[in-house]
Parts: sequence; C-alpha cells; structure tokens
Amino acid sequence: VKIVDLRVTPIALADPPLRSSYGLHAPYALRTVVELVGEDGLVGVSEAHGGEQTLGDFARARETIVGHDVYDLARVWLAIARTFGVAAGPDAADRSHTYLLPGEGRLDVPLRVYAAIEVAALDLIGKMVGRPVCDLLGGRVRDEVPFSAYLFYKHSGGGGVGDDARPDVWGEALTPEAIVTQANAMIAAYGFGSVKLKGGVFAPDIEIETMRALREALGPEVPLRIDPNGAWSVETSLRVGAELAGALEYLEDPTPGLGGMAAVRRGLLASGIDVPLASNIAVTSFSDVPEAVRTDAVQVILSDHHYWGGPRAIIQLGRLCETFGLGLSMHSNSHLGVSLLAMTHLAAATPGLTYACDTHYPWQHAADEILQGGRVPIVNGAVRVPDRPGLGVELDRDALARGRERYERCGYCHRDDAVEMCRHVDPSWKRVVPAW
Amino acid sequence: VKIVDLRVTPIALADPPLRSSYGLHAPYALRTVVELVGEDGLVGVSEAHGGEQTLGDFARARETIVGHDVYDLARVWLAIARTFGVAAGPDAADRSHTYLLPGEGRLDVPLRVYAAIEVAALDLIGKMVGRPVCDLLGGRVRDEVPFSAYLFYKHSGGGGVGDDARPDVWGEALTPEAIVTQANAMIAAYGFGSVKLKGGVFAPDIEIETMRALREALGPEVPLRIDPNGAWSVETSLRVGAELAGALEYLEDPTPGLGGMAAVRRGLLASGIDVPLASNIAVTSFSDVPEAVRTDAVQVILSDHHYWGGPRAIIQLGRLCETFGLGLSMHSNSHLGVSLLAMTHLAAATPGLTYACDTHYPWQHAADEILQGGRVPIVNGAVRVPDRPGLGVELDRDALARGRERYERCGYCHRDDAVEMCRHVDPSWKRVVPAW
Repeated sequence: VKIVDLRVTPIALADPPLRSSYGLHAPYALRTVVELVGEDGLVGVSEAHGGEQTLGDFARARETIVGHDVYDLARVWLAIARTFGVAAGPDAADRSHTYLLPGEGRLDVPLRVYAAIEVAALDLIGKMVGRPVCDLLGGRVRDEVPFSAYLFYKHSGGGGVGDDARPDVWGEALTPEAIVTQANAMIAAYGFGSVKLKGGVFAPDIEIETMRALREALGPEVPLRIDPNGAWSVETSLRVGAELAGALEYLEDPTPGLGGMAAVRRGLLASGIDVPLASNIAVTSFSDVPEAVRTDAVQVILSDHHYWGGPRAIIQLGRLCETFGLGLSMHSNSHLGVSLLAMTHLAAATPGLTYACDTHYPWQHAADEILQGGRVPIVNGAVRVPDRPGLGVELDRDALARGRERYERCGYCHRDDAVEMCRHVDPSWKRVVPAW
Repeated sequence: VKIVDLRVTPIALADPPLRSSYGLHAPYALRTVVELVGEDGLVGVSEAHGGEQTLGDFARARETIVGHDVYDLARVWLAIARTFGVAAGPDAADRSHTYLLPGEGRLDVPLRVYAAIEVAALDLIGKMVGRPVCDLLGGRVRDEVPFSAYLFYKHSGGGGVGDDARPDVWGEALTPEAIVTQANAMIAAYGFGSVKLKGGVFAPDIEIETMRALREALGPEVPLRIDPNGAWSVETSLRVGAELAGALEYLEDPTPGLGGMAAVRRGLLASGIDVPLASNIAVTSFSDVPEAVRTDAVQVILSDHHYWGGPRAIIQLGRLCETFGLGLSMHSNSHLGVSLLAMTHLAAATPGLTYACDTHYPWQHAADEILQGGRVPIVNGAVRVPDRPGLGVELDRDALARGRERYERCGYCHRDDAVEMCRHVDPSWKRVVPAW
C-alpha cells in the first residue's frame, strides 16, 4: 500500500506550571499529530514533538515519504536521512545534546521525523491487517504496561489561558508536604505503584527532604526516583546519593555528561552505594551507548521512541541493554493519548523494559485529548494494551481542530522553559548546570 | 490466527566429502523442515538443523507452540524457554560452545527451536497479509543479497550413496592449484564476488600458499577470507595473519576462545596489521558480545539466525554491531533453499549486514532441493529478494517425501565429522584445537 499523503496538524494543549531545572512549563504544551494516508484510504496516526521547527521538518520530509510503500520503512529512513543531509547510518545524525530540552535539539531531527512516520506506518499496517501494533513488533510479553507517577514542584494553576484555562486539579506544590499531597492524590486517581519526582528545582536539601517525606508517607514498598535533569555537581550528586541510599529505585541524571555520571557512579560504589544511575540526558542515542558501557556511567537507559528513531529502534535498544546488563525504562514529554498508546504497545513488546515508564499524561486535561472516547484510562498505574488494530485509537476530528485552533492562537511556537521561568517566576533566572 | 499444528519432517541431502578442522562431511547432511499450520489452513515453512535430537526438541516444544496466535512470538519464546527449563531471558540458555559443531550443541536448543518457529511464523504471516518476510522485519535496504563463494578442501565424490549418489561436479581439491580451479568453477557458475576458504585442514603453510594462489588467480579486487575453525594457536594465527596481511577481507576464527582471539588481535595490531577478526565460534550468542567488545576480540560477528534466536534477534544484533562499530556477516551450515531465502530476507532487512554472506548452497544438488521450481538462483553472486508473500517458497511435497526417505535409510542421525574423518580418511584422526 502506497503512502499517498502525510497530514501534519500542530496542536497545543493546556499544560500546568510545572518546574524543572529547565525552568517552567508554559501554559501550553505543543505537539504534532501526524497522519499517514494510504492509497486504500486507511490512515495511520502518530504524535510527535510540537512547534514550528517540527512542522517545517515534516514539511521538508513529506515529499520523500509520499510514494513509498507503507512497509518500506528501512528505505523511508534512508530517504529521510538523505533529506536532512546526514549520512545514512542511524547514528550519524544524533550526537548527544545534553543541554537541550528533548524535542528542541536539531541534531536528532531525522530520527524524530522517522520515528513519527514509523509509528504512523505501524498504526496503518495494523489497521490494514487487523492486528495491534505490539503484534507487528514481535508480540507482547505483558498485557498491561505500568507507568510511574510523575511528581513536579508546581505553581498554582491548571494551564491554558482564557477559554482554554483548565481547572487546577493538583494545586500548588512547592514544599515537601505539598509534594506528598500531590503524590497521594495522583496515586488515588491513577493507582500508580512507582513514583518519580522531577527535581533540580530547589536546593538539594529540600529535595532530599521531599524524597524522605515521600518515603515516609508511601511506605517502603513504593519504588521512588528523583530526576534533577543534571542540576547537581558530582559532589552534590554523591551527597544526595548517600543521603537517599536505600530509598531510591534509581537516581536519574544527577549530573550532566557521561564523564560526570561515571564519576558519580564510581564515587557511590566506593561508598558502598549501589543505586543505579538512569539517564535520558547523557545517553540520548545509540552513539552514546559505547562510552556509557565502557565507563559504567549509566545503569538504566531511559528510552524514548520519539527521538531514538521509533519503536523498532527501542526494541533493538532493549536487546542491547539485556546483552550488556543495563536496565531499560522509558522517558516522557508532555503528550496525549496517541503517544501514550504508542509507548504502551512498544513497552508491551519489549521484554527488557522492566521498569514502570514515565508519563506526563496525568498533567493533561480531558478537554485537550484528541481521541474518540476521550482519555486513555490508567488503572492500577497501568495502561491496558489495546487488542484493537493498530494503536487502537481513532482521532476525534473536532477535538483535533480545537487543538489546532489553540495552537494558532496560543502564541507559542517552540518550547522554552527558561523564558517562561523569567516571565512568571524570576526575571533574573538563568539555567546553570550544575546549579548546586 | 491460531497455530493448530507443527509438522516436522526430517530430511537428508547428499553432501560432498568436504573437509574442515571438525573432520569430514558425511555423505548426507541432515536438516529439519518445520511447518506451522494456521487455523485458516495457511502454512508457514522453515528449515532447521537436522537429526534425531533436533526432532526430539521440536516434539518436546510442539505442545507449547500449538494454540498460540501466530503473531504472539514473544510469548512463544517464553513458553519454549520454559519448556526447556531455562530462565526466560534470551541469553540464559546460550553459553558459548566453542568446540561443538553448529547445531550439535545442547545449550542453545531453545534458541534454535524458537528460531525455526519464528521463521515459519513470519512466512505464514507474510502469506496471510500478502507481503514478503523482509517487509515484516522493517523493510529491505537492498533488493539483492550478495553471498560469498565457500571453498573447501575436498575429497573426490559428490555426496550421497547408492541411488542418492550425486555427480562430483567440483572434483577433488586437496592442493592450492585444485582450490583455485574450484574457485574459478564456482565463480563461473554463480558469479560470486567474494571468496572464503574453509581452512584448518592442512598445515598452515599450505593454506597460506592456497590463499596466495587465490589472490594471484582472482586478482586484487576479490575479497578473500580464510576460516580454520580455531585450528591455530595464537602464535600460528599471528604468523598466518602477518603472511596474509593485505590479502584478507577478514580472518575468521583463527584460534579458539575470546581470550585467544583477543591475543591475536592485540598481536596483529602491534605488528601494524589491522585485518578484522571474524567469528562464529568465539561469539555464538548475545552473552558472548560484552567480553568480545571489551577485549576487542572480534571485529566482525558472523551471525546465524538458526541459532541466535531468529531473524529479529539478528536485526537486533545488527543494531548492536553498528552501535559498537562491529561488522556483521552471516554464517552458514549445509542447507537448502528455505534457509537460503530466510537468510536472504533477513539480510535484506539488516542495514549493517554489509559483508557478503556465507552459504553452502553450491555444494548441494538440485535433486535434493525441496522447493517447487527447484533451486534458488544465485546470479552475479547474489540472491534476489523475492517479492512473493512470506519467504516466497512452496514446498515440493514429492521432493520433501524423498528427502524424508533418504533420512530414514541413510543411517545418520546426527552430525559427527570426526567419526566420518576416521572412517574414510584417517582412522587415528582426532580433533585437536589448536592443531597447529
């Protein structure tokens, strides 16, 4: 079946004022909905990073994609790689970009464009042959994919502006106590069995206190993670690691760069602390893996099909991780249900993905979802793998149109959490890495 | 579509008296034809190692496979792993078995059983959805898959006994001159652009002389390889490597074990000789890869979907090789057209597989082929990737029945090249590794 069209729809969705070491989430998160139209009229869907550059990237790739058979993905990749002027190896395009927000780097553009096409193609093929996407990836090893509660220090507000303003379901959370409240509410609503805190926002002692309060409140059986997005020096990372030893399932990106991560690992082991280090900043592509392995800088790779080059690349990464004794987990950006289900199918088909995956989904509001039937249920902390063909989604055209209208009037065309931070919290704020 | 039956047919095919460091090929090579029957009546085919133990393995796995959906391969693997009493990681079953013939080891049985099922399932799915197997693996990067001429020191005889005796197309080849004749004849018949000599048979000086004669006769543009199957000590490997420096595309398994291979690599590099070492003996599974990488023992992995765990495993290995800067090539055992086409689809869908693959196919005779339409053409040294659904093969039932009859009367129930060597060449022969 030939691909006859590539439809690309930019959308914006309300996003609450969440904090991280990158700054502050804007009132809108941007996404791109990609539709691959087959000559038989079937349409495959996927969801990608948002904003004007991403739109331009898809526009540029469009011509090279249309006309290919929907199964001909290896050559679609080669064509995309050529279009963006990179050598045709999957790693030629993607050097680590430690200091950029995921989706805002330019070096992994071909991988991001291809990833969206692969997901849409798998959705289309699944619809064509009447099978769920996980089956096309080799079959599922689990029927439900566990996700983790993703806690954020947060200002008051529900995201969106004017008519788009959403109720502030979660409230302000700028203290350890408020984070515990947030955790309890999110667990009550979704049943999450693992909890991650986005750190790197306050001084490490406050974040240590927050983690201890979570441990105290949730009990010893709930796995906890903290992710300061590289906001700490090696010394601070060692101190936090020592303070939280035994309380962490893994410590995510405490410090920037593979060298820093390796130093933290060595230091922790020298103190008898064997908490795994996870990363989606020091390791963002296959080309980062050899050094990570050689120096033992990372023990858990936080994969993301959106920028590693699609679901099949992640399954390959899973085998690589199993081979080298690395753990595999899954990173998330603000996203809607299409991405959530792509992540779910992929995780179901990846044996080595044994950690609960990250998701920002609870931070989004039902009014912004673009799926018929509304939001994807997360029950007992898990998403059930759909048995329906493809990803198991149908777009709600009206909701998609509203998302596009929001995009057009919201005034945002790319993500810049630092600008947002200066605008709303602290005019003199600058991202410094490491900050502590 | 549920799998309702697993049909397993042992066959024997005439095999000429080829020599290697394992000894002598018997007059028959043994294979197993596996047919997966779907509830819709469609049948998927694959070809596996042969003999009684393999038959028993499939019989034991049968119950666990029947009843699964044909797409449900991840769980089929888990069920097979459980059946054979190994932990459910793909690597738990497979430790390196340096001294065993491929297909005769017992430790990779679950991977070999699963691999045959995966190929048959992909063939069945391909027929069901009307697509070639390479498309199910992610699409092809090439339309033709190059294979290498596979030269052997050989006694006179065409293989088979009595009514099964095949004409000796290639003649005796026990000298450098005769190997050159063999090479020229094989290139004339198939158009191969790369040449591999199975060594480890005669004293290294004779094999060096053979390689030099080939280089002389074929010219500098034909890539040459030699594979003594670990018959040489580290010292001998270094000497041969030095003597043949510049004449080799790669040096395959000169010496046994990862430690030995690493020592050869270090020694060669110390002498300024950067010929890659290839292996299908020191590296036979994912579990061998980390040490191979760490010690730089192997620069080219000779993959084989038959014992690595199926086509998808090899594609995953391909990504791993790209990531770590390793080359990827393909190993072969004596086989018929079903395996040849499985290798072809897989190689077409594996971007990193940039070396011409091994194949024993020229050593087999048309009278032993089990495909409708007869032997698969190798033209200009390459097999064209079929566009037909599945592997693109249909079994010739009469030919298959004849293969089974040959199996039943041939008197061979497993491969033992050492026994054969004693019986026909030298009663006192024993495999010694390293021999020189």
